[in-house]
Amino acid sequence: MAARKRLSHVAPGGAARMVDVSEKAPTARRATAEAWVNVGAAVARALRRAGGVSKGNVLETARLAGILAAKRTGELIPLCHPLPLDDIDVEIALAGVRVRIVARASCQGKTGVEMEAMTAAAVAALTVYDMVKSAGKGVEIGPVRLLEKTGGKSGRWAREGDADGPR
Amino acid sequence: MAARKRLSHVAPGGAARMVDVSEKAPTARRATAEAWVNVGAAVARALRRAGGVSKGNVLETARLAGILAAKRTGELIPLCHPLPLDDIDVEIALAGVRVRIVARASCQGKTGVEMEAMTAAAVAALTVYDMVKSAGKGVEIGPVRLLEKTGGKSGRWAREGDADGPR
Amino acid sequence: MAARKRLSHVAPGGAARMVDVSEKAPTARRATAEAWVNVGAAVARALRRAGGVSKGNVLETARLAGILAAKRTGELIPLCHPLPLDDIDVEIALAGVRVRIVARASCQGKTGVEMEAMTAAAVAALTVYDMVKSAGKGVEIGPVRLLEKTGGKSGRWAREGDADGPR
Amino acid sequence: MAARKRLSHVAPGGAARMVDVSEKAPTARRATAEAWVNVGAAVARALRRAGGVSKGNVLETARLAGILAAKRTGELIPLCHPLPLDDIDVEIALAGVRVRIVARASCQGKTGVEMEAMTAAAVAALTVYDMVKSAGKGVEIGPVRLLEKTGGKSGRWAREGDADGPR
Amino acid sequence: MAARKRLSHVAPGGAARMVDVSEKAPTARRATAEAWVNVGAAVARALRRAGGVSKGNVLETARLAGILAAKRTGELIPLCHPLPLDDIDVEIALAGVRVRIVARASCQGKTGVEMEAMTAAAVAALTVYDMVKSAGKGVEIGPVRLLEKTGGKSGRWAREGDADGPR
Amino acid sequence: MAARKRLSHVAPGGAARMVDVSEKAPTARRATAEAWVNVGAAVARALRRAGGVSKGNVLETARLAGILAAKRTGELIPLCHPLPLDDIDVEIALAGVRVRIVARASCQGKTGVEMEAMTAAAVAALTVYDMVKSAGKGVEIGPVRLLEKTGGKSGRWAREGDADGPR
Repeated sequence: MAARKRLSHVAPGGAARMVDVSEKAPTARRATAEAWVNVGAAVARALRRAGGVSKGNVLETARLAGILAAKRTGELIPLCHPLPLDDIDVEIALAGVRVRIVARASCQGKTGVEMEAMTAAAVAALTVYDMVKSAGKGVEIGPVRLLEKTGGKSGRWAREGDADGPR
Repeated sequence: MAARKRLSHVAPGGAARMVDVSEKAPTARRATAEAWVNVGAAVARALRRAGGVSKGNVLETARLAGILAAKRTGELIPLCHPLPLDDIDVEIALAGVRVRIVARASCQGKTGVEMEAMTAAAVAALTVYDMVKSAGKGVEIGPVRLLEKTGGKSGRWAREGDADGPR
Repeated sequence: MAARKRLSHVAPGGAARMVDVSEKAPTARRATAEAWVNVGAAVARALRRAGGVSKGNVLETARLAGILAAKRTGELIPLCHPLPLDDIDVEIALAGVRVRIVARASCQGKTGVEMEAMTAAAVAALTVYDMVKSAGKGVEIGPVRLLEKTGGKSGRWAREGDADGPR
Repeated sequence: MAARKRLSHVAPGGAARMVDVSEKAPTARRATAEAWVNVGAAVARALRRAGGVSKGNVLETARLAGILAAKRTGELIPLCHPLPLDDIDVEIALAGVRVRIVARASCQGKTGVEMEAMTAAAVAALTVYDMVKSAGKGVEIGPVRLLEKTGGKSGRWAREGDADGPR
Repeated sequence: MAARKRLSHVAPGGAARMVDVSEKAPTARRATAEAWVNVGAAVARALRRAGGVSKGNVLETARLAGILAAKRTGELIPLCHPLPLDDIDVEIALAGVRVRIVARASCQGKTGVEMEAMTAAAVAALTVYDMVKSAGKGVEIGPVRLLEKTGGKSGRWAREGDADGPR
Repeated sequence: MAARKRLSHVAPGGAARMVDVSEKAPTARRATAEAWVNVGAAVARALRRAGGVSKGNVLETARLAGILAAKRTGELIPLCHPLPLDDIDVEIALAGVRVRIVARASCQGKTGVEMEAMTAAAVAALTVYDMVKSAGKGVEIGPVRLLEKTGGKSGRWAREGDADGPR
């Protein structure tokens, strides 16, 4: 039988709320998320045909957009705490007809950096979509998902099994 | 044979660039995007058990996050133009073990509002993830994808076939 | 009998929503709002004792905060449209034991600039509070209220009677 | 005779300035502020007639706007320090013909969170105004005021007497 | 004898103010600005030694920072109007021991885009500084200056003489 | 022979990156930067003719723009960490035909506040340009440069020689 789950962002009375972390001590937190963009064969060819520099520039633009977005997570996600990020690292690569984005965030904080990693990955993926949509409006983003987190009371969590591909 | 695709955000020399729209006239633009969040059975139960009001508040929080994010698309996506949005509408519903978000954006503009709809859908999905992650870190977002766009030189585009589900 | 009132930001089904203005034509819009801050006798004396320049700097800081906030109204107020402001003008003066802020906004837009004027006035008032709170935490802001608006389908509206004082 | 008051945000030479907190140690800080919106009888009826869900959505929108604004206090109020908020909590209720907003902020910081609580309350009030203004442009906001603060060198301060109503 | 100059951002009474553009019609506006960064011989060598890709990434990061900053000019420069930018283009190249940034902005607006071009150039230069400062804290930025503007009542203005170097 | 310089923002593979500071302990950091604006004789006369108050307001506007921009350094400069600023202080004065801006930033942080000081100085300078450009589009900004920094592993650094003038 599945365990009962509690939603920490829902108050007993039902209202969405921030989680009060004033009684928690800061600990080292890390999180890794990934996002995939299935650009399809034609766009992948266009990216490769454009050659090293321009492909680099497309992917570099997405990478920087992800880094910048991570720093604004608290502005975008209503119930997130602002966090003093120690590092955000976004890797992005074209693999076959898909682009894979891996975002890592770390901080010394009272709450986890999962949302920073997820936001970096998602906004990098949106930026890839923006740059290729003239050649393929049907391009799909997904999955966007957490791969691993460490730190905090709940400790380490890692996705099982399929870390090297969405399916 | 697949048609050759051109990436409008890549200059001939390879640099990522904005598309200069100074010679274009504003026309009515609309775009619809969707994002799915597979929250799984346990979280879906938690959302339903919480009852009408609190589920409403969780989804309403995500909906507002999407609307607010759409207005900041030009800040998040490096090569997007700022657009004078006429409307942003985000619908969100729990369907089985998945949450479906549909975002519609419209403006009178020189360029399309696809990115505003995509950004609204993606940030609403990130917000759902934030609110349920205490109960399910493995929850996955995706697909995030365009359903339809109208207006502009390229006219109407609509996704084929599978509009009512990700698979 | 009081006329039935409709809340334009509430959809028939009950959801908060933006008002779709895509079918509206832009017209000249103006709005004026005021905010009062009752700083009390001691703070008013401190402001006056500081002399012309420093009082000017305190009030000038609040004035600029109001102008800047007006430009971010669409980021702060979830269901507000971003508007292409033509002008924001904030006046601020110490009158007795109270500071009065008057904010005027104008644009050529599809919807009114009331919220821009109200936001400018309110944030200028918060800034006054910030600067005097070391000398008087009990200082109160209010009323913040619209004085007049022109333009749009509903035309001119002006507050009756008490334009020169809150009470 | 009233004690002489000093404005900490005014330098000896008269310039507005931030307060240098580099020599202070972080301590636990809390602040509570309230804002009232006198929506009047007709709007109160419209909110009640709309029923539970839609009233909830109107007030929930305001509540989230307040939470988000608190996180941006340092961007809005020129001389405020950015603070690592531990919690922001906004409650909002319709009481007779008035809406009452109570905002609580807490952090471990070198300076107080009064402005975060005040900003949350004020922006939530502006959002209520935005959502009801189609039915009542004359609606007034106020008072917006601090109810209590704890922590820091000056310790606890609490408003006297009238905590349950503006007048 | 030098002509008397008027500061449009200073009201007759002395207050800094926005320029009210509500009576102006939008016209096509363009502006070009440049910024120089004297990185010195050692940093220039480090950039060149790092080779094509990494130098490209350093300069591409600065280029994107400039584009993004241009879109936020109205948030940064208190008396600037928000403008519906049609294009922002930033070029950046290493020339000897200096980096030259050229930023071009265009819009259909009631006021000029000089500040958008200047802001893009300046923030790109700050970003270059950030990326090379570990190797040379003494690196200097300047000049940052307008090269040309067209459109509006005052028509075309172009810097005389020295367009290809700071001195 | 000049020492080999390393660019900390460039990864071994060439990608621009943030510097991971998760293993560093926070220490007291200070940085001072300056920016010069050569407004020319005619604008300097206009500023002086306008008299004390209006000149004060022009310079005060620039000063506040600098303070506000420092707080947003992490949003503007892609690879900067968000920092918990303890103080930002901007001084600005008209000296002959030039305006000199000196910005000081301090924090208890894992990385330096040089970019906060540089950003404050540069945005204050852009704001001066904005306010005088109606009288002198040719006005030049520069140099913008670091004067001193203290704290961190590399300790104190100070510019040699020419601290009281750009040349």
